[in-house]
Amino acid sequence: MKKVYEGKTKNVYELENGNVMLEFKDDCTGKDGVFDPGENSVGLTIEGIGKANLETSIHFFELLKEAGIKTHYVSADIEHATMEVLPAKVFGKGLEVICRLVATGSFIRRYGDYMKDGTVLEGGYVETTLKDDAKGDPLITKEGLVALGIMSADMFESMKEQTLKITKIVAQDLKAKGLDLYDIKFEFGYNNDEVILIDEIASGNMRVYKDGKIVDPMELTKLILAK
Amino acid sequence: MKKVYEGKTKNVYELENGNVMLEFKDDCTGKDGVFDPGENSVGLTIEGIGKANLETSIHFFELLKEAGIKTHYVSADIEHATMEVLPAKVFGKGLEVICRLVATGSFIRRYGDYMKDGTVLEGGYVETTLKDDAKGDPLITKEGLVALGIMSADMFESMKEQTLKITKIVAQDLKAKGLDLYDIKFEFGYNNDEVILIDEIASGNMRVYKDGKIVDPMELTKLILAK
Repeated sequence: MKKVYEGKTKNVYELENGNVMLEFKDDCTGKDGVFDPGENSVGLTIEGIGKANLETSIHFFELLKEAGIKTHYVSADIEHATMEVLPAKVFGKGLEVICRLVATGSFIRRYGDYMKDGTVLEGGYVETTLKDDAKGDPLITKEGLVALGIMSADMFESMKEQTLKITKIVAQDLKAKGLDLYDIKFEFGYNNDEVILIDEIASGNMRVYKDGKIVDPMELTKLILAK
Repeated sequence: MKKVYEGKTKNVYELENGNVMLEFKDDCTGKDGVFDPGENSVGLTIEGIGKANLETSIHFFELLKEAGIKTHYVSADIEHATMEVLPAKVFGKGLEVICRLVATGSFIRRYGDYMKDGTVLEGGYVETTLKDDAKGDPLITKEGLVALGIMSADMFESMKEQTLKITKIVAQDLKAKGLDLYDIKFEFGYNNDEVILIDEIASGNMRVYKDGKIVDPMELTKLILAK
């Protein structure tokens, strides 16, 4: 098993069967010792957070599998904090795909002249940003992704459609636990020209409210995994 | 004839036939007495600039008419610096639609990690921003325009298609004059649910190069109107 990439929160290994193994680490992004999924550098180590994020991801990837949505997820080994996934290439230098069900955060900072914070976005709104810390993760349109040669228009449409379906499934699951999903961030890649969801689906990737109050990621993980 | 709006560079009157009359003023946007089409406040008055912008607009609107593209343009009276146009509503609080043929400016500030300044954007790239000085005219996607109820997806596609066609016609005309169009800014509105080009097509709305050097708007107007 060859380590091909050492990430901030995951190590990546190549498997002999052509698949890839992700190892979830206990390092998390944050600043000054405080966990913040929005930060881009490792800020602290929390014992067990790697396994907790893996378990959360398995929970959602299994739900997607049941719904017939293909993702990069193959199987997982919780004891060793690893997940076997299909090999996939990221688009460009990495994209973030955000689905918003309730308008808040940067959406309101940009478009607050047209909509009040907390407005429900009927059917969900999908947007894409480039991963580029220096440029503040700029928003990019379908036309922009095509112009820069990052993906085809068809790939964009597939990514958008999958994002809406996946978000709906995650939101329904959270709803059943008394939680309201406001927005969620995904990463997509392509495997033989097929666009598939990659990376993880963990608490740090979503903004969730309970009884009108935001739930922090650590608490959210507990609520999601509660039997 | 009733004045219904007093703008920075144009006055707007209602005509009895249901159309609208735009009066081009000699006031122009700028800062500290220097003409700058990108500024949002009136900075100076230049004698004759109203008529010059009107003549430039007529030149291009007539070209579009010949090409069978419907716009708000009906007729003009250069002596009185007026243009008769179809009545139209702006989208939301006003949008800017930009067509880029060569990547430069804010496009490179956002996406410079993926493309070099000066790269030709084959076929043209269209993007939309909200007119919102305080928020720095934020970029908005088709999905965003729909989510905020600013326009339908079909209206967006019509606007995008028209923008590409119109830009091609303007670029061809400039090319014949030895000028290279890099990008151009339009405003669209709707008249009975039909999306049409409104406002003006003047030198301040485009970035044009001649022999690799940018041409300033005053000089550009002269070159466009030269017989």
